Amino acid sequence: MALIVQKFGGSSVANAERIKNVAKRVVRTKRKGVKLVVVVSALGDTTDELLDLVGQITDRPSEREMDMLLATGEQVSVALLAMAIHQLGEKAISFTGPQVGIITDPMHTKARILDINTSRIEKALREGNIVIVAGFQGKTVTEEITTLGRGGSDLTAVALAKALRAKHCEIYTDVDGIYTADPRVVPNAQKLDVMSYDEILELASLGAQVMQSRSIEVGKKFNVPIYVRSSMNDTPGTLIIKETRKMEDVVVSGVALNQNEAKITMFKVPDQPGVAAKIFKVIADHGINVDMIIQNKTQTKTTDISFTVAKSEIKKALEAVRKAARSVHAGPVTSDGHIAKVSIVGVGMKSHTGVASKMFGALARKRINIDMISTSEIKISCVVPGNKGKEAVRVIHQEFGLGKN
Amino acid sequence: MALIVQKFGGSSVANAERIKNVAKRVVRTKRKGVKLVVVVSALGDTTDELLDLVGQITDRPSEREMDMLLATGEQVSVALLAMAIHQLGEKAISFTGPQVGIITDPMHTKARILDINTSRIEKALREGNIVIVAGFQGKTVTEEITTLGRGGSDLTAVALAKALRAKHCEIYTDVDGIYTADPRVVPNAQKLDVMSYDEILELASLGAQVMQSRSIEVGKKFNVPIYVRSSMNDTPGTLIIKETRKMEDVVVSGVALNQNEAKITMFKVPDQPGVAAKIFKVIADHGINVDMIIQNKTQTKTTDISFTVAKSEIKKALEAVRKAARSVHAGPVTSDGHIAKVSIVGVGMKSHTGVASKMFGALARKRINIDMISTSEIKISCVVPGNKGKEAVRVIHQEFGLGKN
Repeated sequence: MALIVQKFGGSSVANAERIKNVAKRVVRTKRKGVKLVVVVSALGDTTDELLDLVGQITDRPSEREMDMLLATGEQVSVALLAMAIHQLGEKAISFTGPQVGIITDPMHTKARILDINTSRIEKALREGNIVIVAGFQGKTVTEEITTLGRGGSDLTAVALAKALRAKHCEIYTDVDGIYTADPRVVPNAQKLDVMSYDEILELASLGAQVMQSRSIEVGKKFNVPIYVRSSMNDTPGTLIIKETRKMEDVVVSGVALNQNEAKITMFKVPDQPGVAAKIFKVIADHGINVDMIIQNKTQTKTTDISFTVAKSEIKKALEAVRKAARSVHAGPVTSDGHIAKVSIVGVGMKSHTGVASKMFGALARKRINIDMISTSEIKISCVVPGNKGKEAVRVIHQEFGLGKN
Repeated sequence: MALIVQKFGGSSVANAERIKNVAKRVVRTKRKGVKLVVVVSALGDTTDELLDLVGQITDRPSEREMDMLLATGEQVSVALLAMAIHQLGEKAISFTGPQVGIITDPMHTKARILDINTSRIEKALREGNIVIVAGFQGKTVTEEITTLGRGGSDLTAVALAKALRAKHCEIYTDVDGIYTADPRVVPNAQKLDVMSYDEILELASLGAQVMQSRSIEVGKKFNVPIYVRSSMNDTPGTLIIKETRKMEDVVVSGVALNQNEAKITMFKVPDQPGVAAKIFKVIADHGINVDMIIQNKTQTKTTDISFTVAKSEIKKALEAVRKAARSVHAGPVTSDGHIAKVSIVGVGMKSHTGVASKMFGALARKRINIDMISTSEIKISCVVPGNKGKEAVRVIHQEFGLGKN
């Protein structure tokens, strides 16, 4: 009998009505004759409500106690879903992450899964249960409760699918699957039937946040097929698997837009070996994640360096960068929050030429100025003015013929 | 260094403000130079909110899943209290019941504590922490989450006090301590400084529900001194200890009123050996708890039997009793929901005579008719008409000189 792991996010279990809907879907799947493990996130607003309480108590909560607190959200969901399944006449049993032996390192609020002891789940499955597991959480070897950070429930699902040698893992969300572009920006965007792990990884990092990168990386590492599907309907969604030769026929799979970055430029940076390393060490030491980095060599003995950071970190980043600039005797530092990053992704790029020039040409015809460019084997990103981001996505989407006819 | 266990109930941690107040009190106690273990219940309305969700999903929830669900309430409280204590600059660490090794039997929703492994708490105390433990919960030897039923957090506190050989256990509540009568009924009722376990046990069973009987029984069995105190002020509360000779000077400690019982009478029950046993077996088999039982011998070959049950169970009880009546060929069955049970309690009764006649005389002078009487070594209970219950309490309270001057 095939084993499937399904994961339902917070919006799918936001209230009693939705929990009952998930129960119906789960029972329907079970009755098709499969073994079923269901991973659930916390009820819609639970986490926000708990964080609100924390905010009234302290502005620097201990990470250990945060894990203790937030892990309760998923525990509530799994118990309620088990009850809803019982109400439909099926056997079900719920477990917390610690109970099913999801062992993590002790890095509270962002723990990594070290090991999963599947014996308890396997026993419950043998007894005919739908097994419901709290996502997002685990325990250390010393029985401390940990959480896995953002997207942790996806990670739980994929890791369980691997550990249990599941046929595949289904991630239920509020969209039908992964699209060639955001349908709110490009009305004729198409749902993709199949994508590679690498493409999704690029898309996630580019701001099309369908799934967190970590769970895709685990899926890729252990070759777990992942379906991204809607919990609202029965359309098959998008299947994420490892790259096949057939995929390479498609040059560009999708266009992503990220409007959450800001650009920082350091002028007159001494053009000497080791200077860049020094600058980015200061920035990293301040915990700032840097995305694209561009260095423009000029005619003088100095150079200008630009890079992008998350808009939410711009204040902290500027402090760090100004400190770095002083330490290397560089010139002024400026920032620009009005930028958009437009990216194309596709495994076919590796074997096709002229993709970049086609993208740049499309932008040029619409007189959209390109500010920064960065590329990898399977993606090309351009930073354009913030107010041109959506237009850029549409023109590129059309240029590569990704839309529905 | 002395070790104290403190327990704060749901109303003491109902919101962020109250949690901060508990934190202040706890830190103040710690800084007096004691080792401190704090047991906390779920935040005020949490349990009701979870039960409301359950009600929308099923009308017969699995007890195992109920435990899974409800145990989250205390987990939230302990994490928030730990954060509030950190905010005041003291070391604190929170644990769930399962984490500190509170091992129970597998009777979900009403589990009994089998064992407590104190090594984790003792280690945390040695490291200078205020140790915060989730009340009401434990785990079985197979790592199933269990809850201890009504008053479970009190039980956790008293059991921990025993296991850790604490100096005493403090139960914080919204009253100043235990009174000679309910101050809402008897305005000049006095707070008692000291009471015996047995008196409290009688009071609890008589409807003055200050603490659940189970935790007092544990306190009595292991001789753990228990303070019942208010979390709102610093008055010393009532100390519950084992009976001392001095206590016997006080004939009557308190007067209790229970208006939550109903009376059932079976007429014309055949007066033969074994009939009563048969009747009460049927009733017990239906899960009905019977309190007072009175059998009135009549002149004929039959007898009438009256007893009291909880009002909330009257419908279920009547069904069972009618079934029992048929099976022993008894006559009609009637019920009366308009009764009140008034009781006096005091260890001094054992060595003083005339206590019962004094009580009956006081009621007679007010023309309050006594319907049923039941006595133990340290208590006398009378059933009176429901609308006379409060008056009966007041007159008895005065008769025994319990009021403030």
